[in-house]
Amino acid sequence: MSSAAVTFAQDKSNQQRFLNELKELLRIPSVSTLPEHKDDLLRAAQFLADELKRIGMENVEIISTGGHPLVYCDWLKAPGKPTVLSYGHYDVQPPDPLDEWKTPPFEPTERNGNIYARGAVDDKGQMYMHVKALEALLAAGKGTLPLNVRVLLEGEEEVGGESIAKFVANNPARLKADFALVSDTEMFAPDLPTLNVGLRGLIYTEIEATGAKIDLHSGMYGGAAPNPFFALAQIISKLKDENGKILIPHFYDRVQRPSEQELQAWKSLPFNEEHYREHEVGSKELTGEPGFSVQERTWSRPTLEVHGMPGGFIGAGAKTVIPAKATAKISMRIVPNMNSEEVFKLYSDFVMSLAPKGISIKVKLLSMGEPMIIRTDNRFVKAATEAMKEVFGKDTVFIRSGGSIPIVAEFEKHLKIPSVMMGFGLPDDNLHAPNEKFHIANFYRGIESIIRFLQKVGA
Amino acid sequence: MSSAAVTFAQDKSNQQRFLNELKELLRIPSVSTLPEHKDDLLRAAQFLADELKRIGMENVEIISTGGHPLVYCDWLKAPGKPTVLSYGHYDVQPPDPLDEWKTPPFEPTERNGNIYARGAVDDKGQMYMHVKALEALLAAGKGTLPLNVRVLLEGEEEVGGESIAKFVANNPARLKADFALVSDTEMFAPDLPTLNVGLRGLIYTEIEATGAKIDLHSGMYGGAAPNPFFALAQIISKLKDENGKILIPHFYDRVQRPSEQELQAWKSLPFNEEHYREHEVGSKELTGEPGFSVQERTWSRPTLEVHGMPGGFIGAGAKTVIPAKATAKISMRIVPNMNSEEVFKLYSDFVMSLAPKGISIKVKLLSMGEPMIIRTDNRFVKAATEAMKEVFGKDTVFIRSGGSIPIVAEFEKHLKIPSVMMGFGLPDDNLHAPNEKFHIANFYRGIESIIRFLQKVGA
Repeated sequence: MSSAAVTFAQDKSNQQRFLNELKELLRIPSVSTLPEHKDDLLRAAQFLADELKRIGMENVEIISTGGHPLVYCDWLKAPGKPTVLSYGHYDVQPPDPLDEWKTPPFEPTERNGNIYARGAVDDKGQMYMHVKALEALLAAGKGTLPLNVRVLLEGEEEVGGESIAKFVANNPARLKADFALVSDTEMFAPDLPTLNVGLRGLIYTEIEATGAKIDLHSGMYGGAAPNPFFALAQIISKLKDENGKILIPHFYDRVQRPSEQELQAWKSLPFNEEHYREHEVGSKELTGEPGFSVQERTWSRPTLEVHGMPGGFIGAGAKTVIPAKATAKISMRIVPNMNSEEVFKLYSDFVMSLAPKGISIKVKLLSMGEPMIIRTDNRFVKAATEAMKEVFGKDTVFIRSGGSIPIVAEFEKHLKIPSVMMGFGLPDDNLHAPNEKFHIANFYRGIESIIRFLQKVGA
Repeated sequence: MSSAAVTFAQDKSNQQRFLNELKELLRIPSVSTLPEHKDDLLRAAQFLADELKRIGMENVEIISTGGHPLVYCDWLKAPGKPTVLSYGHYDVQPPDPLDEWKTPPFEPTERNGNIYARGAVDDKGQMYMHVKALEALLAAGKGTLPLNVRVLLEGEEEVGGESIAKFVANNPARLKADFALVSDTEMFAPDLPTLNVGLRGLIYTEIEATGAKIDLHSGMYGGAAPNPFFALAQIISKLKDENGKILIPHFYDRVQRPSEQELQAWKSLPFNEEHYREHEVGSKELTGEPGFSVQERTWSRPTLEVHGMPGGFIGAGAKTVIPAKATAKISMRIVPNMNSEEVFKLYSDFVMSLAPKGISIKVKLLSMGEPMIIRTDNRFVKAATEAMKEVFGKDTVFIRSGGSIPIVAEFEKHLKIPSVMMGFGLPDDNLHAPNEKFHIANFYRGIESIIRFLQKVGA
């Protein structure tokens, strides 16, 4: 049984158009972390505002912030019906290392039923599903929707989401809604409809180590001048042991173990650890705390990772320099009930206590987001599971994600609403990596799932 | 008492011209480690070949190699006189970090009696002293020289000097000489004439750590995927302890302690450790093995340094990636009687033994050069000390250098000749660092010292 909106979304020529529009959006290199792309962020915001206006949304506005703009619009003419707050982000991760992309990151290319581009799945493609679902509903409803809708899109998700966090905290009345819909997660396995009910928080830092006042020749000064890379190596090696256990005192004090029921459900998910190791991670062995499953380690245990170590000489060949300064980009993923401010202080104090002789250490906080458990005892989550079951023909599973979507915690805190995290990415979509992709069939199934979900909520 | 050659070199208009010519050479960005500068290396070689021809040297030739070319010329018409092999290098270190230069690295600029540019002292400026000394001698001698001269210049000193090493090994007859003259070192203190009689060897390596097959999202995979930066930090922290003692088994087995006499001479050098720490190094504290003086630590003790750690994300802001691969550029300075091949094997075996779970490690050798003690019991060294004393009015001191000039070992091995290392750099000349400079007065005093030295040898 298909509604007119579902028929609209299943129409082949509409689907081709949806995909072409998405490609247009993917061609905009809206890399939020790089200042030189500031205008591209604005272009992406403008693209979305124009499209939301075109499909019939009202009060479309590009809201300036201290960083990249927000895009807001609404349609609030369904009195008595619930209000959904649709969220997405139009910024993307940097594309480097560029030489590992098979086709250029900002020239979207179809291969094997996928569309390859930076942002294809994270989150332009998934965000655009919301826009196209609203288009289908508005077209079928002759300009009306089955429920009230607010849309709020940001351009800083990949750099910590500071502006939207402020906006949400300062405008709870303007954003009044019954629940949020977020499509920035993945399905546990292909064809397995999935709702995400937990997220890790993120604390992103830099440790800056300074030794000499200028770069020095390692022949002349090696043996007398402190080496900031060596200092960072010493510090990093003391933050986590070889098994992946974090050594910061009191780090695990507030870590909450998932319920036996949740752990049991994770065990029954279709998961082959050897296949995951070989085909998804591709390393000789997996790492992490002994005694915990992969799901526990990536969903409900904290972690600490080094992302890059700028400084010194990184070109080809040999340069014999003792750099004056070196930096380590280090983040922690935290889990319920850890508190980001508290953890950052534990981390920062411990790092400072490890500063080796001759080296000055600064610990910088780049961004911070809380971990999150989503309430599932509400009719929105129930409607979502039913909608996805209709599209996929299978029961929806509940999982967590090891990633961080800080805005979900902000919605809970300031708007007092739960988020339905209905994502259509796949585990091998190469998020944050070269050759990011989105399975095109999931783009269409996502649009249809959202249409059916919003229809059920508004019924 | 000044010879005609010295008078020529002291002439103000000649001196201004020498400096202008040097500036022209310094404007050529002959960075040997970066493939994009290949043509600049050739330009620098051509500049020198043209100049050597112009001043009256014979058999000038640009010799192609597998890498950057050599420049050769000679003048061999002084039968019965000794033959000097004049060596220098026209390649330079990369200029990064560019933003720390007060004036651009390839726009030579005069400030406070110094000339600032990449290569000013290492080694274009010092090499050019040889050329100008020969010009003065040829001008004063109406096209003749007081001794036989061969000149051999290379463009790969900063990348290991592979081509010249092969050329020297394969052409001992063509390079037959009684001693080599090398000006690629520094004076112990301003106005203190210095001969260098010892060099550390250099082993430059890369440790490449590979975990996953592609870059992974640290949210999704943090806790399960191995992190190559963490692996490198663990390895590096086990290579050297916090006091600077290298922990590679058997590393120190062949280290030779300098003679009591040499150690005593080092103690009487004008050296203020606190001034060195504050003004030359500029760190809170000095580091290095307890119980050894700064001179011992930098001249006669081996060291191990990290120069850079390419891989992952090094841009501004936050990227939450677990990189598939990361690299550490690590070099060791070795001292008599260590052997570079043996030490590389000890290092490589130890690094491989430290490979953490899930990580594949490769150890790459980029270049290798032997440590060196110069024989001082010959008349060339004696003539050099006298020449410098005449110019500086002070007794010449003998020191060692912590740096590496691999060619000196090659000259000893294949040509069986000692090198006179007569350098005119200063400790604060910022070798291999931003704002490299050469004190202009030392450029002129160097030219005059070399003239007087060659005259004495040929007398």
